[in-house]
Amino acid sequence: MASEKKLLIGVDLGATNTKIALLSNRARVLARFTFPTASYSHRQALIEKLIYEIDRLLSLNTISFNNIRGIGIGLPGLIDFSRGIVFNLTNIPGWNNIPFKKILEHRLGMPVYIDNDVNAICLGEYLYGAVKGVSNVIALSLGTGVGGGIILNKSLYRGASFSAGEIGHILIDKNGPRCGCGRSGCLESYIGNYAIVRMTREQLKKKPSRILNDLTDGDFNKLTPKLINMAARKGDSLSIRVWQEAGRYLGIGLSILVNLINPDRIVLCGGVSKAGNLFIKSALEALKKYSMEVPCRTVKVVFSKLGDDAGIIGASCLVK
Amino acid sequence: MASEKKLLIGVDLGATNTKIALLSNRARVLARFTFPTASYSHRQALIEKLIYEIDRLLSLNTISFNNIRGIGIGLPGLIDFSRGIVFNLTNIPGWNNIPFKKILEHRLGMPVYIDNDVNAICLGEYLYGAVKGVSNVIALSLGTGVGGGIILNKSLYRGASFSAGEIGHILIDKNGPRCGCGRSGCLESYIGNYAIVRMTREQLKKKPSRILNDLTDGDFNKLTPKLINMAARKGDSLSIRVWQEAGRYLGIGLSILVNLINPDRIVLCGGVSKAGNLFIKSALEALKKYSMEVPCRTVKVVFSKLGDDAGIIGASCLVK
Repeated sequence: MASEKKLLIGVDLGATNTKIALLSNRARVLARFTFPTASYSHRQALIEKLIYEIDRLLSLNTISFNNIRGIGIGLPGLIDFSRGIVFNLTNIPGWNNIPFKKILEHRLGMPVYIDNDVNAICLGEYLYGAVKGVSNVIALSLGTGVGGGIILNKSLYRGASFSAGEIGHILIDKNGPRCGCGRSGCLESYIGNYAIVRMTREQLKKKPSRILNDLTDGDFNKLTPKLINMAARKGDSLSIRVWQEAGRYLGIGLSILVNLINPDRIVLCGGVSKAGNLFIKSALEALKKYSMEVPCRTVKVVFSKLGDDAGIIGASCLVK
Repeated sequence: MASEKKLLIGVDLGATNTKIALLSNRARVLARFTFPTASYSHRQALIEKLIYEIDRLLSLNTISFNNIRGIGIGLPGLIDFSRGIVFNLTNIPGWNNIPFKKILEHRLGMPVYIDNDVNAICLGEYLYGAVKGVSNVIALSLGTGVGGGIILNKSLYRGASFSAGEIGHILIDKNGPRCGCGRSGCLESYIGNYAIVRMTREQLKKKPSRILNDLTDGDFNKLTPKLINMAARKGDSLSIRVWQEAGRYLGIGLSILVNLINPDRIVLCGGVSKAGNLFIKSALEALKKYSMEVPCRTVKVVFSKLGDDAGIIGASCLVK
């Protein structure tokens, strides 16, 4: 029995934290460990740390390498899934054209699969989450960055050079705010974490907010989408307006996806997707306003079911 | 030999004209006939005319119905390809939920396949034209309407409810001009035929143009994209500016396709795609400006090879 390879390892390698998990073949998380990615700024140090922690996770749980079917890793960047090469990572320097799959397979002696993190999440939600078995799905990850994963005709669509789904960087307004990518007016520059904070700061210049003042001890450098969401829930009108405005832009982005791709479902994941009713209601209104009738009637916008585990579960699904 | 079914019929049913062609199995046009669609305003009359002309095309060429493998028909609207139902047609009233495939198969006694006209064109260009065998392709039809067809992983992608590729109605600017679809600021409201004419008229209010004046005999109601293109070729600075501006909007639309879908090729078809260098140069500059580096480097923008026959050839490909 012990020789049956029925366990999986899923790794969600993010710019802030790296999560490692041991999972059953049916994607149940059996054990997990998290370490701060940024503490290992050199690529080689990060790879060594990752190998060390995988090793430790297995020995702590008295699991032999022979029981592991493979390791799946989701990374925030441009990944050649088929050859296992990292072209580049967003906010993690030093990862250009790295044959990561080959390096790890050589060191660990087991199959390794790597892909873009939102592709992995999309696959996880498709196999075990909110869009189980649905033919045409777009996963939208809302956080610091805004990324997308696309499942068409029941399989991940990666595009001609593995960069399909760059939803965060479709142009919303050519006169819009500067985006982290260097261009201006991308969707991310309206609904990414920094955008939410920027919009709130701009509003605060025009009008004070007692609630935001209290929540940040008067230091608006402490503003985060989470705090702005708390303020909105406490009835702060300024924060409410910010979420409504951001929701409208999300809706415009969704309408472009819906008109172009005509998906069955769109699944929202990531921190900003938890921003609640105001944000989502406003997004759905804009979606209806700006999309064609038939694909708008077809699509359902749903939330991630895998939540914070979407990254590790999705990564483990890459092994299959 | 005569009993081998190796001929095809392709029908391009447009709002203005309906083209019928007899084609070899390798998509060579052997005979053709065109009639004005608008002269048959009642649906039943149009169907009878179509059947009559197909019949006549075969007898004139002494071809028996037994030699025909099937009929493919491209229509400008929302079509359920698998069940053969026309949900609606743009600018041809009276076609709502019509089981067109069944009606024709019953009357003609041979297999009939119907699909959206730009899907058919995309398939034609993929099998015999400018994007032969290319895995991931978007066909963009530029004319009165702006439509799209999408081939992903070497097969037509139609979406969850057959409406994928509504490229003409993705939002470019929420404060933009009114679009024929009832919304505002869609891509079509910047680069469709009416948009080109509207932009030219707006410019003419600010500044006269001797060349446009001559070409229209002073009656600007006669303006067409073709005339505006002629004026631009004659060096008319106003017309040149209009094409450059329209090209910029086309480029923004292309950038959204490229960032989202990461295609290998985009193939431009239809009247406006013949507008020449100014238009395309400006579009490619905007594409480069607004799209991500990797998918932008990957994509090639090419022109239709099947030209005016794209509709009939593409339609005949539906039979395969």
